[in-house]
Amino acid sequence: MNINNKHYTTIWLNENDELQIIDQTALPFSFNIVTLSTYKDVCHAISSMQVRGAGLIGVTAAYGVYVAAKDFAKQVKYSWQEYMKNACNDILQTRPTAKNLSYALEKQTIIWQEYCFEKALPMLREQALAIAQEDINFCYKIGEHGKKIIAEIAKKKNGKPVNILTHCNAGWLAFTDYGSALSPVYAAFDENIPVHVFVDETRPRNQGASLTAFELSEHHVPHTLIADNVGGHLMQHNMIDLVIVGADRVTRNGDVANKIGTYLKALAAFDNNIPFYVAFPSSTFDFSISNGIKEIIIEERSGHETEYITGCFQDNEGKQQIQEVRICPQTTKAINYAFDVTPQKFITGLITERGICSANEEAILKLFPEAIKFKE
Amino acid sequence: MNINNKHYTTIWLNENDELQIIDQTALPFSFNIVTLSTYKDVCHAISSMQVRGAGLIGVTAAYGVYVAAKDFAKQVKYSWQEYMKNACNDILQTRPTAKNLSYALEKQTIIWQEYCFEKALPMLREQALAIAQEDINFCYKIGEHGKKIIAEIAKKKNGKPVNILTHCNAGWLAFTDYGSALSPVYAAFDENIPVHVFVDETRPRNQGASLTAFELSEHHVPHTLIADNVGGHLMQHNMIDLVIVGADRVTRNGDVANKIGTYLKALAAFDNNIPFYVAFPSSTFDFSISNGIKEIIIEERSGHETEYITGCFQDNEGKQQIQEVRICPQTTKAINYAFDVTPQKFITGLITERGICSANEEAILKLFPEAIKFKE
Repeated sequence: MNINNKHYTTIWLNENDELQIIDQTALPFSFNIVTLSTYKDVCHAISSMQVRGAGLIGVTAAYGVYVAAKDFAKQVKYSWQEYMKNACNDILQTRPTAKNLSYALEKQTIIWQEYCFEKALPMLREQALAIAQEDINFCYKIGEHGKKIIAEIAKKKNGKPVNILTHCNAGWLAFTDYGSALSPVYAAFDENIPVHVFVDETRPRNQGASLTAFELSEHHVPHTLIADNVGGHLMQHNMIDLVIVGADRVTRNGDVANKIGTYLKALAAFDNNIPFYVAFPSSTFDFSISNGIKEIIIEERSGHETEYITGCFQDNEGKQQIQEVRICPQTTKAINYAFDVTPQKFITGLITERGICSANEEAILKLFPEAIKFKE
Repeated sequence: MNINNKHYTTIWLNENDELQIIDQTALPFSFNIVTLSTYKDVCHAISSMQVRGAGLIGVTAAYGVYVAAKDFAKQVKYSWQEYMKNACNDILQTRPTAKNLSYALEKQTIIWQEYCFEKALPMLREQALAIAQEDINFCYKIGEHGKKIIAEIAKKKNGKPVNILTHCNAGWLAFTDYGSALSPVYAAFDENIPVHVFVDETRPRNQGASLTAFELSEHHVPHTLIADNVGGHLMQHNMIDLVIVGADRVTRNGDVANKIGTYLKALAAFDNNIPFYVAFPSSTFDFSISNGIKEIIIEERSGHETEYITGCFQDNEGKQQIQEVRICPQTTKAINYAFDVTPQKFITGLITERGICSANEEAILKLFPEAIKFKE
């Protein structure tokens, strides 16, 4: 998608075959491109959330395996297999919840387990590029499928915009391009279907206020920022027509792990009969599990992310300063779970690259019959 | 309650009969006492939220009428009745949702409508002091009643703390002393019943992170700060035993207007079979209405409160600076509803100065039979 009318993806190999990313921790206040020279840089980029979002974490991991492989010759301590096993393990440890991370690592692992360094290296590069391209294609298709839901609602609104609530950032910044939850919004907007997005701030890391608002601003999509507390009130007063969120891990029966707070919005949508959709590429499925609340590991991050918040202000000389400020007493500590699980009963439907289905095992397996073979 | 082991109320007349408050916009970073010399100062203190919270707004309004009356002689434009009508109207306009504001103004209005300036002045002072004292007494009783709920749960926890979630600040800072939602917590804590409070940050104005955390810290009550998004996840994982919130307006059938986001926590408590109580003095009742969602006016405040956040940081010289920072792109605007309505069906019970009752008209009227006379 575009930033200041120039097209970007969130990650790419530059002309010197260096891995580059947009540093998302600096958005929306400054636009910095960062080079990830070693796989340790890749790990840091994922764990510090310079790159984040289910899809982008997976694609970055895929590229990270290639970056690691390139450095194999620089060390003498480990064999190829040992070295790659350690590297993949380090990358896997960066974030525990997003399924896309292990999906990408498993695909790359097949290559380095099968082939020697010299043969594997170009194949790992090739497959990282393919995973990124697949991510782009799948997100594009999610947009095409999801657009129909928005178009259908638009018919009943007599030219008034379709009001869509989204939580966190599941836009193109969370993937390689297009996004999951926002892909249908962009597709509808680009076809002149009137849309307006309510953007949940998404404390503690404010991916809504910083990234979703930034994306939508740059693409000129009408939107309004709200505190995470506001969505229920808007739904009670018919100010939301549709909720679309992304996902970090989806069970075979349709339970959805997504950014903390998603569950609360699903409850409110359910209570007010508002359609609640979850959009994601199939790499987000974890067909091996059925009970999201019991089985999905929820990442616990530092309480610092809740005790402090980062924003910008103009200093006395009129210069923009990015500043982290503390919002609670020094004696107060926070806990910080990054995701929650929305049980399938609260979900109207799942939007995937293959189409839209209900959030239950039968409907999911009809769309993804290859998953029947997975045992719990 | 205590700040740094010294007892304070949130508002008082000092030895020179000047109205003084704790400036709550500066907490928890600095502790400033502000003198409200004119009733315009009082209006500003309420609308800018130097004082806030249902009970304290009411008490401040009552004192505000007395402050206005004292200045009557300084103007020649209006008659006593006209002057007081204007002053009360200005005070009423400061915040639209809290019932306690109109409750206090109505009580004072009876005096200035009945008596001339000379006779009314000491009576207005007397009644403001009485309203403040009633607020203290009622909050104390709420604590005594609510403590029993906590004690009952504690019996089943084998010495482990009772985990209580609260939203916004309904502690002593929201009243004259003790508080509503936190009064049972203080009462239990002071009787050595083990308690632990999960404190919702309460965006956009962060009354949880700044005021509730500050109160609990000063009283040494164990507590943990969480983002507003986290409560649902904690409830799904049996980490919350009880929710207690305050209220700004309660209908005759038990619908509750309280800080925006309360409704989302009530939905999650309901979905997880966790008791959800609302604590308030009876001055919060609006017996004239029955449908909270349709009939309670919800204050819309400036989007600035969502687009910016205030916190503190240490500057290069190690000095603490309080700084407001912007958290979204300049092109992004926010809307900011201050309250939402929780329908009575999601509420386990109401804790008032007269005792605990279910959130329905029959139970409420049994406890407050004088309200039968109110017509819708």
